[in-house]
Amino acid sequence: MGLFMDVHTVEGGVSRDDVAAAHEKDLATQGAHGVSYLRYWVDEQAGKVFCLVEAPSAEAANTVHREAHGLVADEIYPVSEHS
Amino acid sequence: MGLFMDVHTVEGGVSRDDVAAAHEKDLATQGAHGVSYLRYWVDEQAGKVFCLVEAPSAEAANTVHREAHGLVADEIYPVSEHS
Repeated sequence: MGLFMDVHTVEGGVSRDDVAAAHEKDLATQGAHGVSYLRYWVDEQAGKVFCLVEAPSAEAANTVHREAHGLVADEIYPVSEHS
Repeated sequence: MGLFMDVHTVEGGVSRDDVAAAHEKDLATQGAHGVSYLRYWVDEQAGKVFCLVEAPSAEAANTVHREAHGLVADEIYPVSEHS
């Protein structure tokens, strides 16, 4: 399993409610793919969404987004977390 | 206080050690500006660093990076966090 940060950029901005609704669909879909969407951050005005996700691969994480709501990330990076 | 996600993109990649060293300098500098760098994620190969930071403003967060080590983020977004 790996940790990934994905980045969505939505032209014209996004609403938290729309992102929350999409996230609920991710949660309902991810189990079949061994994926866990852990946390996400939203800038409504800039239309930016950052999703932190644990997944066997970037492709598996993307597949969940694709099957759940079709909004695949524009970028996805394998990351290590630090503090 | 607001929550911000900043994004650094380093041509040619970054090492976790170099990012950790820069982060230590942020921690030593942030107090004077009322800023708290909370967590960060690194993709060494892509040269991507995502920093989650609590700050009175984006400019205050940037100022800490600038004074600590000069590596100001390429992008910074005010975000809300969800899970």
